[in-house]
Amino acid sequence: MPLQLYNSLSRRLEAFEPLVPGRVGMYVCGPTVYAEPHLGHARGPIVFDVLRRWLERQGLSVRYVTNVTDVGHLTDDGDAEDKLAKRAKLERIEPMEVAEKYFWAYFDAMDRLGVRRPSIVPRATGHVIEQIELIETLLEHGLAYVSNESVYFDVSSWSAYGELSGRDPAELVEGTRVEVRSDKRDPRDFALWKRADAEHLMRWRSPWGEGFPGWHIECSVMSTKYLGDEFDIHGGGLDLVFPHHECELAQARGAGKPFARFWLHWNMLTLGGEKMSKSKGHVVDLFPLFERIDPMVVRFHLLRSHYRSLSDFADEALQASAAGLRRLRSAYASWPSHAGTGTPAEAWSEARRRFAAALDNDLNTPEAIAVLFDVARDANRARDSGDLGCAAAARALFDELLVGILGIEAASGEGDHAELLGAVVGLLLEQREAARKRRDFAAADAIRERLGTFDVVVEDTPDGPRWRRLD
Amino acid sequence: MPLQLYNSLSRRLEAFEPLVPGRVGMYVCGPTVYAEPHLGHARGPIVFDVLRRWLERQGLSVRYVTNVTDVGHLTDDGDAEDKLAKRAKLERIEPMEVAEKYFWAYFDAMDRLGVRRPSIVPRATGHVIEQIELIETLLEHGLAYVSNESVYFDVSSWSAYGELSGRDPAELVEGTRVEVRSDKRDPRDFALWKRADAEHLMRWRSPWGEGFPGWHIECSVMSTKYLGDEFDIHGGGLDLVFPHHECELAQARGAGKPFARFWLHWNMLTLGGEKMSKSKGHVVDLFPLFERIDPMVVRFHLLRSHYRSLSDFADEALQASAAGLRRLRSAYASWPSHAGTGTPAEAWSEARRRFAAALDNDLNTPEAIAVLFDVARDANRARDSGDLGCAAAARALFDELLVGILGIEAASGEGDHAELLGAVVGLLLEQREAARKRRDFAAADAIRERLGTFDVVVEDTPDGPRWRRLD
Repeated sequence: MPLQLYNSLSRRLEAFEPLVPGRVGMYVCGPTVYAEPHLGHARGPIVFDVLRRWLERQGLSVRYVTNVTDVGHLTDDGDAEDKLAKRAKLERIEPMEVAEKYFWAYFDAMDRLGVRRPSIVPRATGHVIEQIELIETLLEHGLAYVSNESVYFDVSSWSAYGELSGRDPAELVEGTRVEVRSDKRDPRDFALWKRADAEHLMRWRSPWGEGFPGWHIECSVMSTKYLGDEFDIHGGGLDLVFPHHECELAQARGAGKPFARFWLHWNMLTLGGEKMSKSKGHVVDLFPLFERIDPMVVRFHLLRSHYRSLSDFADEALQASAAGLRRLRSAYASWPSHAGTGTPAEAWSEARRRFAAALDNDLNTPEAIAVLFDVARDANRARDSGDLGCAAAARALFDELLVGILGIEAASGEGDHAELLGAVVGLLLEQREAARKRRDFAAADAIRERLGTFDVVVEDTPDGPRWRRLD
Repeated sequence: MPLQLYNSLSRRLEAFEPLVPGRVGMYVCGPTVYAEPHLGHARGPIVFDVLRRWLERQGLSVRYVTNVTDVGHLTDDGDAEDKLAKRAKLERIEPMEVAEKYFWAYFDAMDRLGVRRPSIVPRATGHVIEQIELIETLLEHGLAYVSNESVYFDVSSWSAYGELSGRDPAELVEGTRVEVRSDKRDPRDFALWKRADAEHLMRWRSPWGEGFPGWHIECSVMSTKYLGDEFDIHGGGLDLVFPHHECELAQARGAGKPFARFWLHWNMLTLGGEKMSKSKGHVVDLFPLFERIDPMVVRFHLLRSHYRSLSDFADEALQASAAGLRRLRSAYASWPSHAGTGTPAEAWSEARRRFAAALDNDLNTPEAIAVLFDVARDANRARDSGDLGCAAAARALFDELLVGILGIEAASGEGDHAELLGAVVGLLLEQREAARKRRDFAAADAIRERLGTFDVVVEDTPDGPRWRRLD
């Protein structure tokens, strides 16, 4: 298979071959479900959705795992809560209720963006036992230590630490923020298990006392549980390389698991050149965005840049993508869906080859999209010169590549049909009035009757005709 | 509050008062996610969705918990699997992949049926630690015993066993199927924890060895974890009273938890008078059903019988419901959405009172629906006699009760707009041709221009006019 992917671990393009012939195991770090989904949540799932479709297109069976981090850090001592009054379970915040709400919000947003659901969506809270087991293994291997009922990974004992991010462990010490009260032996160490303070709402018992798992451990556990100790692809945002993925890798390899062979990282989004960041309030929530922008335009826009490049979401850039998609869709809509006489399916074989070469080249979606613009231009010409077979073949090609692989709906949304329907029926009723005025009552009645055959009932009222649908 | 609910535990109607003022905790047994959702899955969620809306309407805040049973019993020794060939993790069936698929199928079906998502959807696999803890408590209380690495509830030690189902524990012995190889001391005992055989795919470590939780324990654990040791309402199908709910209750009370105050059970569905049963293959899957029946008709049909009565799904019955809903929707569509001069909102206060009395009477939805039919008849008369204010008030009442409480969309689906639009535009283009034939070119051009203002482009081709939408 000619697919080349850039592997962050080796820092070069590598030919991708699945570990188990015919099957691909893919793990992508998913959302922490404690806030509204925003644009930062959209890129990775869209890129990996395209990769998944592309792998499946090669006949591979893909098991795609995305975790949900629902081990919340909600505590019971916020200002908003009066601890004395909140005695009953029902009166307290329940972290799972918050997690549930944003779990659905995230997947609803992904639905709108055309992202197919992963094969397995493991939740951190659903794998506490397995996380405890991995921590025990790391303790047995001498790579972790217990301190004040918490457990930490001992970075100094794992010489490979830094292999993914390319950071020198020795230099990391200086860069680390000094914590005032810490149970760590070394500031570079990271938590595998944390003791739960009294006000911590989510807590489980463990060999070290009541607590909750550290953030990194869930991914080492859930990826290998569902994909095996060694698996094909691990994805995540570039901001996760360090410390999250570095720690994941150390935990897994420290426990004797070879772990992911390919590490793929997507780049960040910017807004008018500035980095989007939740902490700076510089973030675009998806549902408000979908009210003014077709989610398919968002998807198209994200795929118009390579996943390892920055992607900017300034309004002008987004409008340019909207116009581009409109051009593709309008071309598509103008091509016949089948043509009696016809150019055979090989009509667009060169375009298909170029599209495949683009995706095989580290998933170069902007290049793949450029191929589709070329097809649109050429097929419009063919249509105008009466070669409908060629145009129909382009339509089939768009169904296959634009819809099937890039996951972009080629037809415009259905949502505005109702409005248009009202306008068109109104126009028809004007024709009926005009027929009456010229005393062509047969024509006027025919309009009403024909509408009736579509279950549209017209009633004449003192204020003019009114219509409604039967059923 | 005047709401009366039939409590299966006391076997009588009782006035419902929430345990914590202003808040209601409600637990409903959810699906086992290992097969396609079928009609049997639909009734409970719809009934409890209406109950939830009705409680919220009284100003109560409802925490609604529905579990998902994903502790599967898939094993690795099925005929379909060649154990020797399936060495890699990716080559084996992964129970969570199966559970994931049907998890989404279930909630997609519920979406179609207008069922709002529960506040919390705990999964059995996500609460293994808590289940182990409850089993330990039962062992400490002398109500359970360990046998061959499994743990069983000792029914003879719990004299209240039978309190929910009304069965006499002594008589239960005779009725119990004799198991050939059993670790139980008494055939009535039930498993709290089961030892996993070698081929069992889902397994967790426990104080008793590797195994998996019994079926009943998850509900005792997850209901009390999220709603408190005592909570307001527990729901389930009538077929769950025994043994599932009886065991749940024994486990919870045996551990010292007062548990649910109200037990509500919905009755079974029949198909042409015969009980629907998965084991007999006598079952109707929801997605194939939705291809021929509007899901709102299914919801409406289910609400047309009282939840404690049988509900039959013979085609004639379903068609009668479809016709009934069509009548309500067609009346609704004929009423103006606002009226300049108007009857005040109290116009329908008697209907509103009767609707409330019906729901307050153990959620008598058929009676509530009958009230809406009366409103439809009276409001149509008002409309015909020109009292548009009264009709507009009926429309508002339907929005409030039919849509808001019963959860039935009052407007017909949007899906067929596209088809109708095509028919209507076609009719308009015929008008244009007719205008040309009578040499009224101004009228013909006006039609084309007006369509253009709605972004509908008309092009004349040798085969006649063709149209498409811009964008």
